[in-house]
Amino acid sequence: MELYLFRHGIAEEKSEDIQDEARKLTKEGKHKTEKVAKRLVELGLKFDAIITSPLVRAHSTASILMEAGLSKKLEESGYLAPNGSLSGWIENWLVQQKFETDYKLVLVGHEPDLSSWAELLVWGEAKGNIVLKKAGMIGIKLPENAAPLGNSQMFWLTPPKYFL
Amino acid sequence: MELYLFRHGIAEEKSEDIQDEARKLTKEGKHKTEKVAKRLVELGLKFDAIITSPLVRAHSTASILMEAGLSKKLEESGYLAPNGSLSGWIENWLVQQKFETDYKLVLVGHEPDLSSWAELLVWGEAKGNIVLKKAGMIGIKLPENAAPLGNSQMFWLTPPKYFL
Repeated sequence: MELYLFRHGIAEEKSEDIQDEARKLTKEGKHKTEKVAKRLVELGLKFDAIITSPLVRAHSTASILMEAGLSKKLEESGYLAPNGSLSGWIENWLVQQKFETDYKLVLVGHEPDLSSWAELLVWGEAKGNIVLKKAGMIGIKLPENAAPLGNSQMFWLTPPKYFL
Repeated sequence: MELYLFRHGIAEEKSEDIQDEARKLTKEGKHKTEKVAKRLVELGLKFDAIITSPLVRAHSTASILMEAGLSKKLEESGYLAPNGSLSGWIENWLVQQKFETDYKLVLVGHEPDLSSWAELLVWGEAKGNIVLKKAGMIGIKLPENAAPLGNSQMFWLTPPKYFL
């Protein structure tokens, strides 16, 4: 299967007046995420499912991907909230299901988690050396007959500025 | 500095009639590389220098980038030939020079060397888990005050099919 790690768009700044969970996408964040979604549609991409962090800025990002017609299935998962657990998600969710080789799944979440997950999947350890911008995406191919951690292959990493 | 690792475009098949060094880009290979070059221009990218492997298919790829106006300086280096040495290139070339933080250098070469170099720069070891397609590119930011191996950051990896 192919796993796409999508970081939420630009959101409201942190402040004492608003809970982190409730921070919304800004107008610019929405607009840029919509443009990325449109470009993904133009490239002919379709995803079998999108799973999003429950936080507002991630959920809104996932909704923009849905509204663009990129997938018909949207789910929420606490594993994708900040400081979520990749190993937990793999053990409790991923390996419980059977995926076709060409299954395409998007996870919408946060940094530094997503790029750390990418490093764990591809190299088995996270050094914090992948830069994933807001509304940017990583594409990873999971192995068919091996444990995903340390055996996956990265085929795509794009910041919006080089994608739009 | 930013280092861009660019893989040569689609080339003639290997055969007994032609030396590997002399294999040319195919018509499709030229065309796709030209489209990638045009897109890089549209994105506003400019490179301070391009260094290419001396092999024909790499040199022709570099020439296409030059003709598109992406750089004014082209050099050849044996380090970039197949099975070239990253550590040799770093010791004998890279560290002998002073680069501005925003210096942008393209290396045009071959697989599996380029993606292994990227892994060495970013994670310190090569596992063969980056997929770099022909006429695809990797973007890496080298650290300003540390050894580049294991301390560089990857910000871009794009196959032509998701770039054009």
